[in-house]
Parts: sequence; C-alpha cells; structure tokens
Amino acid sequence: MESLERYFPFWPRLSTALQNRLQSAARERHFAKSEPIRGGEDGCLGLLLVKFGQLRVFTVSAEGKELTLYRLLPGDLCLFSASCILPGIRFDVLLSAEQDTTVLQIPAQVYRSLMQESAAVANYTSELMAAHFSDVMWLMDQILNQKLDSRLAALLLEESELISSDTLTVTHEQLANHLGSPRETITRMLRYFQNEGLVRLGRGKMVLTGRRQLLILAQNSRR
Amino acid sequence: MESLERYFPFWPRLSTALQNRLQSAARERHFAKSEPIRGGEDGCLGLLLVKFGQLRVFTVSAEGKELTLYRLLPGDLCLFSASCILPGIRFDVLLSAEQDTTVLQIPAQVYRSLMQESAAVANYTSELMAAHFSDVMWLMDQILNQKLDSRLAALLLEESELISSDTLTVTHEQLANHLGSPRETITRMLRYFQNEGLVRLGRGKMVLTGRRQLLILAQNSRR
Repeated sequence: MESLERYFPFWPRLSTALQNRLQSAARERHFAKSEPIRGGEDGCLGLLLVKFGQLRVFTVSAEGKELTLYRLLPGDLCLFSASCILPGIRFDVLLSAEQDTTVLQIPAQVYRSLMQESAAVANYTSELMAAHFSDVMWLMDQILNQKLDSRLAALLLEESELISSDTLTVTHEQLANHLGSPRETITRMLRYFQNEGLVRLGRGKMVLTGRRQLLILAQNSRR
Repeated sequence: MESLERYFPFWPRLSTALQNRLQSAARERHFAKSEPIRGGEDGCLGLLLVKFGQLRVFTVSAEGKELTLYRLLPGDLCLFSASCILPGIRFDVLLSAEQDTTVLQIPAQVYRSLMQESAAVANYTSELMAAHFSDVMWLMDQILNQKLDSRLAALLLEESELISSDTLTVTHEQLANHLGSPRETITRMLRYFQNEGLVRLGRGKMVLTGRRQLLILAQNSRR
C-alpha cells in the first residue's frame, strides 16, 4: 500500500498514531465502468479517494430525473460517499463509475474519529465541502440563468475533453441525466445542433463537427 | 453582554481561554429593516448570530437576477458572512435585513483562530455548512423539478407564516427575487392566482384568500 501522505494535505499535522490509523484502514477497491457504487449495510461507503478512472456524482429527484453535480478525477476525494458521518447533510447523492476506476476507501468510522480528534482534519473536511458547495452554486446559477443550448454545448465539449476525442459514445439519455432535462428535449436540441453543423449524430455515437461554434455557444453560458 | 453559552453547542468543549476570547470579541449590532448588510474594508463581516429580527441570504447572477437561498431567524448563525475565512468557497452571498434586526457579530479572525485550535469548533462549522448546503440542494431540486405555481404558493404561505398575517406587503419584484424569476412572470402568475380566488391583489399589498388551495398547490411542490 502506498503512503497516503501525498493525498492528504493535513498529513504532516497528524500524530504518528493518527497517521497509522488512517494508513492501516485504507483499502483499495475497483469498480468496473458503468458500475453503480453503493454503500455497505449502513449505506455508508466512507471516504473515497480516486486513484485512477472517473466517478460521476449525481442526484435523483423523486420523479427519477438525474442531475450530474460534478465529476471526480484521479486525486479527487469524494466526501459525500461518507455523508453518513457529516451531521447536517439531509440530501442523498449517488455515485457511478464512468470508467474502470480504482479508489482508496477510508472507512467512515475511522475518518469520523480523525475529524473529532484533529482540528486539521475537521477544517480540511470543511474546505472540501465548501469546494463541492461552490460547484453546486455554480451549477444552480447555470440552471437558472443559462439557456439549455449553452449548457448542452458546454457538456459536449467537456465530454470530448475527458476522453480526448471528437467522437462521443454517450446516449441522449445520459446527456439528459447530466443536465436534469427530459430526454426528448435533448434529442430535439441535438437534431438542431446537427442541422447547424455542430454535431453529426450516428448509431450509438455522435461526432463533434463544429467545435468552434460549440465553444461560442458554451461561452455564452460561462459569460 | 449576555453569555454566548446558549448559542454555541461547542461552548463546554472550549478551554476557558478560548471561551473568553470568543465572549470578549462579540459585539452587538443593529440593522434597520431593508438595510443591505455589507462587510468591512476586507469585505468580511464575520460570523453573525441573529438575536432578534430576520435576515435574508441571497445570490445575484451576473444579469442581476436575485434568488433567495434561505432566511435566518433568531438563534440562527450566518456562516457565509464569514466566507472569507472558509477556504474553498468560491461564490458570494448577500445579506439584507427583512426586519429591524439585532445580531451578535464575531470578528472573522477570532472565529478563524477558534476553528484552527479546536476540532469541536471546526466540526461545528462543517455541520453548519452542511445544513446550508442541504437547504440549497432542496432549492435546486425545487427549481429543476417543481412548477413555478407550486413554488410561488409555498412562498406566499411562508411569507404569511413569518409575519403571522394573511395580508402581505411584499412587492411582485420581491417575490420574483426570492424565486429567481422575471418580475413579469410572477405578476402573470399572481393574476392567475387572483382569478382562481387564491389571493386578492391590492395597491402595495396582497391578501391570501384561498389558504387551503394554496396549501394543496404548495404541497405538490414538496411531494
């Protein structure tokens, strides 16, 4: 097991006993692409640290509509997989692996004991939550103030960047789930994009053909 | 100055020195109704504890559209007035007094020193942020999944409850700012409500005349 030192900025401020407790509790786990990631019997996964791959963090409304909150890439830490140990959190987020993914898992009760004993860990947890909170506030601003064409253009470019290719294999359903929109609305917008020469839709894939125009559209959404 | 003991659950876990630091730094401040509340020269107000009155916490988009995030009532603590001391926060929230309001103000640098020295204070801060985060997630779900008529009905009932009266003096503009909607949309919806017998619109005021139907509408929004 590699040292956790490079993942946790509070590491130098932990006593040797707490460093050992954290190090010996970490377990490596693997998730296959598209695998939903669930908690244990208590519904609590614990803290997940992404080593390789990509996780998607999303919510589901009572009507079953999904909305992507953010993605976690190598080096990122998932706090809400341990939301059971965060008093005050009254919402659920779900996780899925978007690629074959390897994580380090820190059991919830171990992380909780560190938070309670070390102000450095507690403040780091606050900071992480603040960063996620900021992402969600940005997203809410997008939803309230930006048109769907801008948000879809930005999403297509982001997907393309994540896989370093102009050919995307996402489905209309997946795009709709990222944006919290009905599938039909996304299909209609994609057909409009195709008519405008921005994308070419194929069976099970789409190719970005108007990257520059997509960028202009997306930048409208980022002001 | 009254003791802060009853406001802060972490009080018994502070050393006497830290208790004294917190107690002696607290200052009482008053804000008149409708007064916008601004930070000092560094833009940072510090932590505000509401003793009497009511504060509104809201955001403003680049286009100037407001959205109410939540209200703070007596006993509530405003964390984001001290967001300058929370690393990771990359969004601004604004505050205004909705009634004549008295707060206790804890300077940012004093609260920061407590967070750094005491795990109990750091964890309490996390918990407070988690509660605000949960409010915002609930709001986002509303915005994405609930129709405006439900949200407006819920808002009218909430306003009425806050002032314990069926006669509201809020303007259409203020309601629009709470909901993040254009003023014209709210006016149109209120006229529809009036036609349905839910409200009676007057000069500078409106009276809730169909509380039961408003409740049914609003409950659709809370599932």
